[in-house]
Amino acid sequence: MAASVGTGSPCGACKFLRRKCTPDCIFAPYFCSEQGPARFASIHKVFGASNVSKLLHHVAVADRCEAVVSIAYEAQARIKDPVLGCVAHIFALQQQVQTMRVIKS
Amino acid sequence: MAASVGTGSPCGACKFLRRKCTPDCIFAPYFCSEQGPARFASIHKVFGASNVSKLLHHVAVADRCEAVVSIAYEAQARIKDPVLGCVAHIFALQQQVQTMRVIKS
Repeated sequence: MAASVGTGSPCGACKFLRRKCTPDCIFAPYFCSEQGPARFASIHKVFGASNVSKLLHHVAVADRCEAVVSIAYEAQARIKDPVLGCVAHIFALQQQVQTMRVIKS
Repeated sequence: MAASVGTGSPCGACKFLRRKCTPDCIFAPYFCSEQGPARFASIHKVFGASNVSKLLHHVAVADRCEAVVSIAYEAQARIKDPVLGCVAHIFALQQQVQTMRVIKS
């Protein structure tokens, strides 16, 4: 995950939100200036920038990268499938486990 | 899913948001006045009422109940595990499938 901290460019999230990127921006380490805006767009659409910012502030710094990856995955899944989102993936895996159990028994 | 449409009480979402519940409220069929506010609280915290409202408007009426169930599940999972949310469930299932494959081979 390329960071944009200290590069002089706004991070991808601030670029998307068209706001000034401050040195303590919570998004900057996880959204680079180039690919970041597109990645942040789906997160913003599904969760909202403010909700994700609050969530990240409540997560240890060491865990934030993983949190951003899981949030981005959930957001993309929800845009792809507005009814089930990533729960469709859970259903498919549960079905796979069930089928494997039947074959095994 | 108990609806509060036409009961005179505001739906659970409007009760939580302390706003007037109109006859065309998008949340009313899925959040009853009694248990609805607690159910809506996690959705509001993780996704935001406005984002969920927009999402439901883009989903066919027949699919909205399932969408609300999956959104509520994702929200509760994210509150329980702020780093991975329901992606933790996906990882656990993927691990289970992998283990079953190893045992089978």
